[in-house]
Amino acid sequence: MKIVRYSDIQATPFEGGAAKGVAGRVVIGKNDGAMNFCMRVFEILPGGHTPKHSHDWEHEIFVHSGEGEIFYRDAWNSIEAGYAVFMPPKEEHQIRNSGADTLVFVCCIPSGAPEL
Amino acid sequence: MKIVRYSDIQATPFEGGAAKGVAGRVVIGKNDGAMNFCMRVFEILPGGHTPKHSHDWEHEIFVHSGEGEIFYRDAWNSIEAGYAVFMPPKEEHQIRNSGADTLVFVCCIPSGAPEL
Repeated sequence: MKIVRYSDIQATPFEGGAAKGVAGRVVIGKNDGAMNFCMRVFEILPGGHTPKHSHDWEHEIFVHSGEGEIFYRDAWNSIEAGYAVFMPPKEEHQIRNSGADTLVFVCCIPSGAPEL
Repeated sequence: MKIVRYSDIQATPFEGGAAKGVAGRVVIGKNDGAMNFCMRVFEILPGGHTPKHSHDWEHEIFVHSGEGEIFYRDAWNSIEAGYAVFMPPKEEHQIRNSGADTLVFVCCIPSGAPEL
């Protein structure tokens, strides 16, 4: 078993290019013996955003805290703490923080995809 | 894409037997086109607990709110909002609410396991 407070894991910052104010952590991954899927936790600072991008794998997202928006098929959709989002494979998407506090969300991906 | 506030999904109560004060929801599952893994959200009321049980699949858990304890190999381990837990397959485990508020956690499982 592994028990960890997500914020105790060293964050990997994503800055520059099309990312702004994003930090990611693998909280459960292949190094823990998780063979089927991987759990990451991302923080986005107010005003920050992920790149707009697509890939061959899905996301299963749960918003832990904060407020934001997620882009999908030419529209921005509001998300906040307590929301779950399923982003199917190959769909262009982007997440941005539209609130005053850090946006924190869990984002799970299948094994085989890059963990971070 | 699916966006849903977890609490807007009809909960399935687990009461009687070895469960007390537990409600579960599939927030992302096979009916949404999620082919690799499934995301559920569980609520446990103060004083409540899951059954002590084991199965052939792993759990990847993220605690959204509240405080509790998770049983693993003859010991209880504290968990609270912001904690991630990887419970490997075949290990006996149990989760109980040790706080005054509802314990809410995300629990992901691989496809093929019963979703709820």
